[in-house]
Amino acid sequence: MTHTLAIGPYNDDEKQGLTRELSPIYLDGPAGVADLDAARRDAIKAVAYKGHHAFGATEMDLLPNVGVVANYGVGYDAIDVKEASVRGIKVSNTPGVLNDDVADLAVAMLIMQGREMEHASAWARSGKWAEQGEYRLNRKVSGGRVGIVGLGRIGREIADRLAAFKMDIHYWSRSEKDTPDWTHHSDPVSLANAVDYLIVALVGGSDTEQFVSKEVIAALGSRGVLVNISRGSTVDEGALLDALESGAIAGAALDVFLNEPKIDPRFYALDNVVIQPHQGSGTVETRAAMAKLQRDNVLAFLGAKDLLTPVN
Amino acid sequence: MTHTLAIGPYNDDEKQGLTRELSPIYLDGPAGVADLDAARRDAIKAVAYKGHHAFGATEMDLLPNVGVVANYGVGYDAIDVKEASVRGIKVSNTPGVLNDDVADLAVAMLIMQGREMEHASAWARSGKWAEQGEYRLNRKVSGGRVGIVGLGRIGREIADRLAAFKMDIHYWSRSEKDTPDWTHHSDPVSLANAVDYLIVALVGGSDTEQFVSKEVIAALGSRGVLVNISRGSTVDEGALLDALESGAIAGAALDVFLNEPKIDPRFYALDNVVIQPHQGSGTVETRAAMAKLQRDNVLAFLGAKDLLTPVN
Repeated sequence: MTHTLAIGPYNDDEKQGLTRELSPIYLDGPAGVADLDAARRDAIKAVAYKGHHAFGATEMDLLPNVGVVANYGVGYDAIDVKEASVRGIKVSNTPGVLNDDVADLAVAMLIMQGREMEHASAWARSGKWAEQGEYRLNRKVSGGRVGIVGLGRIGREIADRLAAFKMDIHYWSRSEKDTPDWTHHSDPVSLANAVDYLIVALVGGSDTEQFVSKEVIAALGSRGVLVNISRGSTVDEGALLDALESGAIAGAALDVFLNEPKIDPRFYALDNVVIQPHQGSGTVETRAAMAKLQRDNVLAFLGAKDLLTPVN
Repeated sequence: MTHTLAIGPYNDDEKQGLTRELSPIYLDGPAGVADLDAARRDAIKAVAYKGHHAFGATEMDLLPNVGVVANYGVGYDAIDVKEASVRGIKVSNTPGVLNDDVADLAVAMLIMQGREMEHASAWARSGKWAEQGEYRLNRKVSGGRVGIVGLGRIGREIADRLAAFKMDIHYWSRSEKDTPDWTHHSDPVSLANAVDYLIVALVGGSDTEQFVSKEVIAALGSRGVLVNISRGSTVDEGALLDALESGAIAGAALDVFLNEPKIDPRFYALDNVVIQPHQGSGTVETRAAMAKLQRDNVLAFLGAKDLLTPVN
């Protein structure tokens, strides 16, 4: 009987890898666990998890012999890690391999917003370039003041790139980092006050919920642009929408949203927002690396070895 | 009688600066020179030039006492510099101040193309994200192999930025530069063979016409992406369109075109091309700096001082 349960929307390449190495039972989401018969559930020792639906006590109760939940992705806020730890269940994620992609997207989103590239493209394609001549002037990005909220692995990759754009780099993190050229802020409102571009690179979960609060958004000011590549939950989205609609801030560039993919339709009516469909890590190369790291964590557990990238 | 003739599509801020410092006669383009009466033409000592229409012997014949043509922009291919030199007319441009903006746009265009950001945005906004789930995977940019055609001021700014994306940097230039981590190619076909992304940062003019030839484009190959922020003339545009339509290369990201703004409509039918309306230097900050440098060159000439940024 198979020892592995693969839960989530895996693509064909990923399924091929999972089947080859782990011959798992596949489920579209955690809701399907309850439909498995008891013998199959009892045999499961490892879960390969992908997706944003909650995986917690209910599912763990149904899988009494599970010892590891290996998450596909660096953000494991869908998994109740506290509950897992109480039960002695190990959790792993896939850090490192996706940092570059997420940072690339963040930088491009920032420039797209500042330089109005999506609007300029549509304007040219509509024939207005030929009719009206020069596109309207927009806004210089290089040399600007940028704030990174959360200087973890991904935040650091973003900051390293933006340093090459000669930006004045500020950041919030719990502790000051060894980056003497960059300015640490212990308060996110102070950070937002100091910069024009604010990039959110926090981990998700309850600890960071609405960390980018109404007050932080207000502090960004009318020249301010918010970039979010973390989780929709980290931002007070209602306050953000209000600020975008009223012009209290200049714009936003967002790869993540509350209730994605069914995002708030108010976003679609705004022309000062760059919208991406949560594709920060969405490259062939990186997803293959993430899938491999997830499998390697499962294999390590089943082989009684240390997890490669443990969370708890 | 006024000594300065301002030719080109100046915006209100620029006109304000010109009027304040030089009280020029304004013309929309060089064709208008012939309509000025002889007394006015004879009084002109300096031309502040903006635009892409040719300014050469015909106009110089009509302005017998002109001593300087101060171009707005780093690319002065619209001005017949050889003809100016023969007549002892000085030419200046506005280098330096626009490098950052052009490099920012080039980097963002490259990532937009690789990560399909424009397509992903349209897909999300169309409601397909909510209906179909994850956007299709695309292509990792960081760590890739990039070639810069022309490692002048702007090419260098682009390369410096892409180095922060951990890219393997190759370049073509007439002479090898003191950049030991980067690979020099003395032949553009060799360069195109070595990379996936080719960024054209040449000066315009007859010397570089179709420098990115059919052979160079073919050498890029089916994974190849061409980025052009220089001039449409530097690329064999017919060969580029053929290669984009046939899939001989993967895509392009273009800020410049032949016959812009009336660009070849074949571009509009392609979904693997990022189109920008020649807005490389199009920010409020940079255009103000370019306008000031142009005026300062005219003022230097009228004050019998050395030009700040001479071309000939």
